[in-house]
Parts: sequence; C-alpha cells; structure tokens
Amino acid sequence: MSSALFEKHRSRFERAQQVCRVRDCWSPFPDMPAKYPDAAAAQPRGAAAFGAQLGRAFELDQPGRIGQLGQECSPYTQQPLGIAYPQADIDVLFHAARHAMRGWAAASPQHRVGVLMEALDVLYREHLFEIQQAVMHTAGQSANMAYAGSGVNALDRGIEALVYAAQALQAVTPHARWERRFGAAQIVLEKSYRATPRGVAVCFACATFPTWNAWPSMLASLATGNAVIVKPHPGSVLPMAITVRALRRVLDAAGFDPNLVTLAVDSVEAPLGKRLVQHPATAIVDFTGSAAFGQWVERNAHPALVFTETSGCNTVVLESTDDLDAALRALATTMCMFSAQMCTSPQNVYVPRGGVATPGGQVPFDEVSERLAEAIDAVGNEPKKAAMILAAIQSPSTLALIDQMRSAAGRSGRVLLEPQPYVHPDFANARTSTPLLVQTSTRHGELYREERFGPMGFVIECEDADDALTQATNDVQRHGGLTAFLYSRDECFISQAEAAYAQAGAQLTINLSGPMPLNFAAAYSDYHVTGLNPAGNASLTDLAFVAGRFRITQSRRPAAPTAQEPTA
Amino acid sequence: MSSALFEKHRSRFERAQQVCRVRDCWSPFPDMPAKYPDAAAAQPRGAAAFGAQLGRAFELDQPGRIGQLGQECSPYTQQPLGIAYPQADIDVLFHAARHAMRGWAAASPQHRVGVLMEALDVLYREHLFEIQQAVMHTAGQSANMAYAGSGVNALDRGIEALVYAAQALQAVTPHARWERRFGAAQIVLEKSYRATPRGVAVCFACATFPTWNAWPSMLASLATGNAVIVKPHPGSVLPMAITVRALRRVLDAAGFDPNLVTLAVDSVEAPLGKRLVQHPATAIVDFTGSAAFGQWVERNAHPALVFTETSGCNTVVLESTDDLDAALRALATTMCMFSAQMCTSPQNVYVPRGGVATPGGQVPFDEVSERLAEAIDAVGNEPKKAAMILAAIQSPSTLALIDQMRSAAGRSGRVLLEPQPYVHPDFANARTSTPLLVQTSTRHGELYREERFGPMGFVIECEDADDALTQATNDVQRHGGLTAFLYSRDECFISQAEAAYAQAGAQLTINLSGPMPLNFAAAYSDYHVTGLNPAGNASLTDLAFVAGRFRITQSRRPAAPTAQEPTA
Repeated sequence: MSSALFEKHRSRFERAQQVCRVRDCWSPFPDMPAKYPDAAAAQPRGAAAFGAQLGRAFELDQPGRIGQLGQECSPYTQQPLGIAYPQADIDVLFHAARHAMRGWAAASPQHRVGVLMEALDVLYREHLFEIQQAVMHTAGQSANMAYAGSGVNALDRGIEALVYAAQALQAVTPHARWERRFGAAQIVLEKSYRATPRGVAVCFACATFPTWNAWPSMLASLATGNAVIVKPHPGSVLPMAITVRALRRVLDAAGFDPNLVTLAVDSVEAPLGKRLVQHPATAIVDFTGSAAFGQWVERNAHPALVFTETSGCNTVVLESTDDLDAALRALATTMCMFSAQMCTSPQNVYVPRGGVATPGGQVPFDEVSERLAEAIDAVGNEPKKAAMILAAIQSPSTLALIDQMRSAAGRSGRVLLEPQPYVHPDFANARTSTPLLVQTSTRHGELYREERFGPMGFVIECEDADDALTQATNDVQRHGGLTAFLYSRDECFISQAEAAYAQAGAQLTINLSGPMPLNFAAAYSDYHVTGLNPAGNASLTDLAFVAGRFRITQSRRPAAPTAQEPTA
Repeated sequence: MSSALFEKHRSRFERAQQVCRVRDCWSPFPDMPAKYPDAAAAQPRGAAAFGAQLGRAFELDQPGRIGQLGQECSPYTQQPLGIAYPQADIDVLFHAARHAMRGWAAASPQHRVGVLMEALDVLYREHLFEIQQAVMHTAGQSANMAYAGSGVNALDRGIEALVYAAQALQAVTPHARWERRFGAAQIVLEKSYRATPRGVAVCFACATFPTWNAWPSMLASLATGNAVIVKPHPGSVLPMAITVRALRRVLDAAGFDPNLVTLAVDSVEAPLGKRLVQHPATAIVDFTGSAAFGQWVERNAHPALVFTETSGCNTVVLESTDDLDAALRALATTMCMFSAQMCTSPQNVYVPRGGVATPGGQVPFDEVSERLAEAIDAVGNEPKKAAMILAAIQSPSTLALIDQMRSAAGRSGRVLLEPQPYVHPDFANARTSTPLLVQTSTRHGELYREERFGPMGFVIECEDADDALTQATNDVQRHGGLTAFLYSRDECFISQAEAAYAQAGAQLTINLSGPMPLNFAAAYSDYHVTGLNPAGNASLTDLAFVAGRFRITQSRRPAAPTAQEPTA
C-alpha cells in the first residue's frame, strides 16, 4: 500500500525522531497565536466555527446512535453551550471498532504513521483556533494557553507518541530465515512476525486539559494498530468531539474505516466510565483525571493494559537562593497559572523554620510566606494579568472546594491570602477566583497531603532544610506528585534533592526563575509523569508508553528449497 | 566506574544485539553436552557437585535467616534430595534488596550489563552440569533437555533480555541542553535524565522449567537497576538456589551488594506467594506457573508491574499434508517431549470429520487418530527412546490428573492410548507415564478446553477444516494458548490460519516435520508468549518485557553561562 502520506510528512517526522533522541528544543508549530500563518484570518475563522456550533447538534456520522447528550457550560460566560452530541450504544461502538481494526492492523507501521501525521496536520491547519475556542469555553483556559498548551504543544506530544510507537514497531523484523542442524537434518525455517494490535482502546480525556494527554494516548494506540473510543469529560466534550470528527475524516480519506475513532459521550448523572473500562472488548485504557477514579481503573481494568495520569501534591523546597524575589515571583506566577488546574501546578511550599538563606542574609519563615503572598496577590489583583494567568475556573465544585479549604485553614493554619473572584476584563460573568494561600506546619498534613485541585497553596513550616526535603519527597512518594521545584545555592543539597526526588518520582526543576512557567513541560524533551508514585503509572513519552500496545505474533514454516539445493 | 566486564563480553553482546535484530540462528554456547569444552571432565565434575549437595544444608550467605526448609524429591529416584535451604524473613530480604539497589542503580547500564554477562558466563563455565543434574532431579527433565533447554537455551534467553534492556535504556539520553525564547528572555536549561529502577522484583520460578523463564526475568529486572527476590517452586529449588548463589558471588566480586539477588524458599504447606506479591515493597512480579494463580497475581499485584507466563491448550489443526506419517511422527514426538510438561506442548489436535487430505487420498478421521496413537506408542514402548523423550513426571499430582482424565475420557470420548508407567533404563524407580490419548468431539469441550498438565492429548472431531480452525483459535482465545501447529497444503487456508492465530495470540508453526521438536523456541528468534490470550501477558523477549521495569526521572536547571556569554 502507498505511504504517500508518510512521504508528505517524512522530513517533519524524521526531525522529531532526531529531537526525541537528543531532547533539545524544537517544534514544527509556532508557539504563539500571532505567529500562526495568516493568523488574522485564521483566528476569526476558528472563532466563527466555534460560534456556529453553539446551540446545535454536533454532526458526527458514527454508528450506534441512541439519543443525544450535552451539558457543557462555558466557564467564561457561565452559559450552556447548548451542543447536543450523539449518544452511542457502547456495544455498537466496540463492534465497529473491532471491525475497523482489520484493515488498519494490516497496514504497515509507516503507512499508519503517515495517516496520523496527516491527521495532526489537519488539526493544526483546519481546526486549531476552533479547538482553542472550544478549550477556552469548556476548560476555562486562557486564549494563549488554549492555543499553546492545548493546541500546538499537544500536537507535539502527539508526534512524540508516534516517534516512540515507530521505534517500538521497528524493533520487530517482519521476516527472518533461521537455519540450524538437528542431528543429521538441516532445518531451514522462514519466519514472519507481525505487530498485532492489542484491541480496542478507551481514552478518557479530562475536563481541564482534554487534548494534551488524550492526543498522544490516542495516537500511541492508533499507531500500533488499535482502534480508540474517546470518552471525554461531560464538561469538556467539544475539543474531543472536534478531534474525533477530524480524525474520522482523515482516516476515511486515506481509505480506512473511520470507526477506528469514535466518541462515547456520557453525563455526570449517568457516567459510562466503569462500563467502558470493564467492557470485555476493552484492551487498553488511557485515563487522565481524578486520583480516586484512576486508582479504581488501575485495579479493575484487568486484563486491559492501563495508562494513568492522575494527580498529586506538587512540592517546592525553598532552601536558599541568590534572588528571593525572582524565585517567589516565578513561583507565584506558576501557582496562579490557569488557577492551578494543571496536574503540574505547584501546591505545597516547604520552608525551613529558620528561613531561607539569601545574599542579604537569612529571610525569616514568616517573611518568606508573606512575600510569596504578595507576589501571588500582584497577579490576582490586576485584572488583565489575572485574566492571562489565572484564566477561569472550570467547575463550580472547585469554588466549593476553595471555600471548604478556607474554613479548614482557619482551624489549622494561617490564611495568607483570601480567595476572591476577580473581574475578567473580557468576560464579566467569568467564573474566577484568586488563590487561597495558607501558612501551616507539618502537624497539619491533612490540609495539604493530597491534591487540592484549583488555586490553593500551602506554605509549610519545616524544622530545617533536610526536614523540608524529607517531608516533600515523602509526601510525593505517598500521595503522588508529578513536578517538584527546588531553590538552593548548595550543590550538595541539590544533589541530595535530585536523588530523593528521582526516587520519589517527581520531575525536578532547580533554581529557575524568569518568564518560563516553572511547570512548563516541553514535548520531545521533558518526560511527563514518572510512574513511580500514585500520581500515575504512565509517562509521556517513553517506550513503555507504547511498547505494550501491540504484541508480536509469529508464524514459521519450512523454507522453500532454494535453487542451490536439490529439490528432490 | 569501570566497565571492564562489559569490555570482556562486548563482542558476544554486540553479536547478540545484531541477532535480535535479524532473528536468525545463533548461540555462543554448544547445543549438545558432548560439545561442551572438556565435557569428559566437566560432566562428572557437575554431577559430583550435585551429589555433594544431597542431604546437606545449602550454604547461602544471605540475611534474615529464620530457619530452614526443603522438600525436594527426585522424579528419577523418588527419594528426597535432603537439601535444607535457609528460610528467610521476607521483610529482611526486601529491606536488604532496597538497600542494595542504591549502588546498582547508580552504575551505568553498560556496567550492569557487563556484570550480568559475566554472571551468565559463570553459570555456563562453572555450574552448567551441576544445574543440569539439579534440573533432572527436581523437574524430571532428560539429561539433554536439562543441558539444552534449562541450560544453554536459558542462558541465551538471559542474554536476549539484556539486549532488550540495553535497547530500552539507550533510548534515554542522559543529558540535554534545551534553549528557547520566552518573551524577551532566552531560557537555557541543562537537563539530566536517569533511568530509575522501579524497585524490588519478585521472580517466581516454576517446578518443571525453572531456569528458562526465571533467568531472563531476573536479568531484565537486574539490568534495569532493580533487585530480585527469587521464589522457586518448593519442588524445584536447587536450580534457582545455585543461580542465586552464583549471581551473588559475581555481584559481590564486581563490587556490588550481593543482596540484589536473594532466595525466598517456602513450602507447599505454607506458601509465601501471596505475601510476596502483595508486599508493599514489591514493584515487579514475574510469574511462571499455573493459570489460576497467574490470574490471581495479575489481578492482585497492583501497583506492582506484572509479567506472567502461565498455560493454555496448545492446538494442532490437521487439514492436509504431503506426508501424513512424517507429520504424525513429528506431532507424536512433540506431544511426548518431557511428558508434555512444557507450556508449549501441543495438547489438542483438531481434525475434520471427513479426514485429512494426502497425496494418497483422504485419510479418514478414525484412521488419523489411530495412526497418531501408533506414533505416540512407538515413542512410549521403547524404554531408551521413552527415557530420552518422555523423561520423568515432576509431580505425583500429574499422575493423579492422568487417572482422572482417563476416567473422564471413558465417559465422553474414546481412549486411543492407555497411559502406563514405562521402565526407565537408568532409573528403575523413576516416576513415569506414557501418554493418555483420547478421541473426542467438540461436544465434549470440558475434557480439553484447559491445559491438562502432563502427557495427555485429545484428537477432536470437527465438522470440517474451517470448523477445526475456528474451534482451535476460539479455544486459544478463551482458554489460552502459546503455540499452535498447522498442517495444510492449501495456501489460502494457511493464510487464513495465520491471521486467525495471530488474532488469538498463539505462535504458529506450519507443516514442520523432521527431528526438530515442533515446539522448539529459539532464543533471539522465536517470541515466547504473545500476551493476547489468558496464557500470559508477557513475551520473551520484546521491548514491553523490559521498558516498564525502569522509569525515567529528570532534573533541569538553568545552564551555567558559557564563556561566550556575559557572566554579569
């Protein structure tokens, strides 16, 4: 079969392969909306496509339709989007998916990669600003984050998944000739090996960052020959519905069965998750979402293979720094970024009781706390900055959690910053909150020893720097953690922290300040999630993320006699 | 650190890497005992080492000793071996293993591979015939199989595991320099990545083929930086005890903590398996053994990563053949091989009701059954041949199962061959049985739709060739199956069978006859177990077998200013 699409995207794909080896900085996509080709036309076109979808049925030509569903509500307008998605009979989707896999599995890995590179390119060229709007009005991200984090960066993670899938597939030779003497006989076998897909994958997308995890998961499953049923969060369906429709069209145009990718929409009242995970035809589950359901998935998906990315308490250790203001400013911005609705947002700041060493002397613990509060306040109290950084709150339940933590903090901590709505300059009715910041101590671990999803932070008084590191890494090991942040001028302490965080399984960023968000995870370079603690068992993207999605089956038979050999 | 051991074994290792890519035939080891260097001296030396061990305590200098245990009994003499192994406090073993991992994890992958190549070489040079005797007198294998299958072939599978571990580790660059503009600032980060081992692995070895699965599992875990606690079957401890002791010595000599490899012996009355699987420090489980316990392990080991190889009903489809006698002879030998106590032994032979097409015409179903019975009988009724091929029965419970199946077959089938002990020419008291062969139909699936461990075979009457293939592949898919065998002259039927078995997940051998055992699995060439059906979730050896045994952790920090850049 033709691999014309692979040839079309070959140079981009080979560049991505090279970058994954050396892990330096690269992307084929512009990092800011303004740099998008003909942005002036593309942006309003995307906005119009989004606008035209509101209050209407979402057209998705997939089998098994049994009704329609839709409960999305924009965090920016707090109005329902009014989009009705087709509700599907799950068994029909699985049946169609299995049927669709036949031709897809038979295609060469390169052919599949070509089709999927084309699909990513179509998302980029035709749907990026539509998805940007869809992410803003479901997840509540800022326009820039919805473009970069949920757009081009997610596309990059998709390409990265294809790179590793291709690497794992290429490790399997399709044919071998094997020859050995057994007693007096020379046995010559022709062997053929096929990468057999595991089966139907179910991909859960989360409410606040739907595309970033789901795209690489979907592509990893598809590249290895599987079909994917996408289960979006009922609050953030549209970005994934656009994705599914676009992929179906690309697959169809390439001569494959579009039912390789389908959408299973559910509602908060009647969730489908457990049924999908335990469906007898489910062979792979990718889950991004809450730690509680993630744990359930890990324990109950057998015999399906499970990849999870859930949550944890991301930690910061402040030991010493050359520039405390710069450090606190960087921390404050990152703790505010998308109202800390990212699985990588720092939450817990561990500070020695004796304070933080700086060139100007030791800064006492209380002063460090207060200066962090001031830096966060400086983000929240300027609406334009707040809008760009804090953006909106995806779910009303997050506001309820902030209230609840505010009350709890009154009992076992000191409230450094009171959360309050800020007025978004473009969306007067946006659901917003400035952060709650609480000062507490390690005696009140019940406050902070789990992810408090949303704009909540804790400054934790520790005995000394060693205690701060021990507390932080123990909390990560027990309660999960994806990212970690350290400020120290002591190389010995840094080495100790690197070893401790490596063992706890959080990706560590050291002494970083400046405009880059501390939790920025670069595709092709930063591994996301280690799998070493309860915050998830998968990593974007390593070989383990792809290698089990297919299995190797073989067939062998005596070789046909060659011309040199007597044929009688 | 020095990689002198890697340099010592570099050419052998690189040759193995090359062979794994092309999967042709190679081994650094001689395939028959007689070809072993100075075999005339080495064989009696191994036998003497084994003999000297009988009736004594097994010296193993590992921590946590709380008593001693030993219940092995030779299948050849039916006498207890009288070897007392140290019984260990499990918590002490885990603690020691975790402690031992520190230095080991810090060594380079190449350094670890060098040490492990040395360990395999030491097993080969110093312990091969001792292990051969140990396997004979615990598992009941013939001398040749104990040398080849449990010796050199298992060593090859160990090297193969190292090749894939090295490949997965090499995919991770240790360092990167990453540079990107954010607004007005140029951010330059130095990133370092480490392959962090997952933790302590528990490796279960089975009674009948202890080394073949355990060695590659152990080496996969060790190469990726983990420690291993070996849990042998109480009936076959010695081969693994010798392994553990040898590896501890090599690790120690190379400057590593020998507690990277320890032995956890248990008894049939007080099994340790569940405690080991669910120990909080268990990070990886490799399990070879019964399907029932394997399923329990898969479901209950969370959050440990699990690799299983259990059992299933291996199937044969007879459609047509150029030489029915040759096919039946090859089948008979393979069904007799080690009394079908191999997870790859064929058990169920599916034959069309209308018989099998041959150049001499259609051979009726009953005649095919009877000629297969004759061919099996020809193996069993000649003691010298029987001894070489059938060898001995590992467990008395297998004889009980044969009895039970004999009775059941009387009710729902026709007994083609009555099982009976044969007299072993060298060991008059050996536990032996010639095979039970039963003719039945698909109405009596309860007879054959699971692994009947031991010398039991079923010839199953099917409606026609298509039904035979459908029955066989359905049975594999539902009840598990590792290997499959097909005889057909019809290329169209062959293609159909290749696709159906690939989907069912059994490795297919087509139209093979002659002296090579049909179920011979060549290291570096044949993948063992697909993971697509209940017979196991792991494969020897693919990338998925190694890639998850370590996780990638990273640390990043602003790069030190270079000479070109202003340092102020």
